[in-house]
Amino acid sequence: MRTMHVIGIGAGDPDQVTVAAIKAMNTVDVFFVIDKGAQKQELVDVRTRILREHVPTDHRVVEFTDPPRDRAPSDYDDAVDTWHDLRARMLADLVDAEPSESVGAMLVWGDPSLYDSTLRVVERVRAVLHSPFEVSVIPGVTSPSALAAAHRIVMNRVGEPVLTTTGRRLRDEGLPDGVTAAVVMLDSDCSFRSLPGWHVWWGANLGTPGEVTLAGPVDDIGDEIVARRAALRAEAGWVMDTYLVHRP
Amino acid sequence: MRTMHVIGIGAGDPDQVTVAAIKAMNTVDVFFVIDKGAQKQELVDVRTRILREHVPTDHRVVEFTDPPRDRAPSDYDDAVDTWHDLRARMLADLVDAEPSESVGAMLVWGDPSLYDSTLRVVERVRAVLHSPFEVSVIPGVTSPSALAAAHRIVMNRVGEPVLTTTGRRLRDEGLPDGVTAAVVMLDSDCSFRSLPGWHVWWGANLGTPGEVTLAGPVDDIGDEIVARRAALRAEAGWVMDTYLVHRP
Ligand SMILES: C[S@@+](CC[C@H](N)C(=O)[O-])C[C@H]1O[C@@H](n2cnc3c(N)ncnc32)[C@H](O)[C@@H]1O
Ligand SMILES: C[S@@+](CC[C@H](N)C(=O)[O-])C[C@H]1O[C@@H](n2cnc3c(N)ncnc32)[C@H](O)[C@@H]1O
Repeated sequence: MRTMHVIGIGAGDPDQVTVAAIKAMNTVDVFFVIDKGAQKQELVDVRTRILREHVPTDHRVVEFTDPPRDRAPSDYDDAVDTWHDLRARMLADLVDAEPSESVGAMLVWGDPSLYDSTLRVVERVRAVLHSPFEVSVIPGVTSPSALAAAHRIVMNRVGEPVLTTTGRRLRDEGLPDGVTAAVVMLDSDCSFRSLPGWHVWWGANLGTPGEVTLAGPVDDIGDEIVARRAALRAEAGWVMDTYLVHRP
Repeated sequence: MRTMHVIGIGAGDPDQVTVAAIKAMNTVDVFFVIDKGAQKQELVDVRTRILREHVPTDHRVVEFTDPPRDRAPSDYDDAVDTWHDLRARMLADLVDAEPSESVGAMLVWGDPSLYDSTLRVVERVRAVLHSPFEVSVIPGVTSPSALAAAHRIVMNRVGEPVLTTTGRRLRDEGLPDGVTAAVVMLDSDCSFRSLPGWHVWWGANLGTPGEVTLAGPVDDIGDEIVARRAALRAEAGWVMDTYLVHRP
């Protein structure tokens, strides 16, 4: 294989795809897509719709099943490492089977640079191949940008920093001193409840038909968010949500 | 005026514009654009090219000159506040002159939610008008995403947070304890030099024909970045740059 494009496709709305992404997709021979299982059908739908609408050119789609992942490991870094390796080995076999002039691509939710393993896995694939391909990255709209747009707000307070972090970090360590604004991703626990007095802007399934947003003081709307999140999750079997918090 | 679209257009490459942005732009009667003066001609070119390529529909462009801004104020927040007010008053007059069914738009560099005053100014305009318009925000690709894509890297270390901050903050306060990754914007001083031992990925004029990227340990390539930045700035009269730093 000659080139691997790693392409950000936006965080839910198929129209969030960029012109650069569309141009790159139209040069692709083979899309490697990870099958996340029966769940998250909507994610697959977004991908399918983008390819159908914007990629009239001939292309193949090669699906591979995500290796199983330890969701409650004793050593988090170690578990991630093992999982990246498994994924890389699967992908390396598929890439190896491609003709040498082939152009491949992987479509990434949101932007490839934010809490996504694709680039790390692709680096490992390159490391094990005899003749490594070129990597090209097309940036995409992130879910924090989609969240801020849905609420029509700016992430940072004037001139101040904003921390992007995970639910796990917020829960285990709180926010570093001096941080007045934070975007939290990958949080199944609504850990904003550890920030009484702060303001929260929450969004679930942003850009999809089931988008829900709520905003207000954590003390006033925290319980409502917890309930809405649980209801969405119960209904579909999954929910994607993220939120911004500001210190008052 | 009926609606104001605030539209992120990406951070340099005209192809970074999204399909949603193009669709919104094609409903617009009047684009309000801020004239930044003779400098930064390339920014104006990107805007012009996007409109010419993607907006065949009839539209007007209303330019207004940015009010003067105190660049070295004694009170930073106060100066920003005054400047937002001046901008809002100028824009309110222009909006007031529009027919009530008009659809307006402002094009924003990168994403409107990141270190940009447009949404704050638009809120002030709404507050002074008798019949305020609706605001709709179309998210865009940020310059941090463009930076990470150019370097083909992930911003965060696995499972760890990343701080987005300004050169001023980094210079005056350093990074909060526990922060292992940071993206720095609006830095005319190459303040990464205060982080010896860290790794830096730097990018200037990303997505434009004059894009330059450099990466390596701060101790090894810090001086080279300072020199390249100065040369770019001397040549064009301005430079836009941003960088990511990771603690080793
Ligand atoms: C593995 S990370 C991938 C992030 C992605 N690369 C991006 O740029 O947004 C997945 C997390 O992103 C957030 N997320 C992604 N899409 C979302 C959406 N449409 N609505 C709300 N949150 C979303 C959620 O916090 C979710 O747990
Ligand atoms: C006023 S902020 C606006 C940021 C914008 N809203 C975004 O989403 O990227 C301007 C800063 O963004 C960064 N920036 C914007 N465009 C850039 C580019 N093409 N290359 C490098 N840095 C850029 C620089 O740090 C610059 O000082």
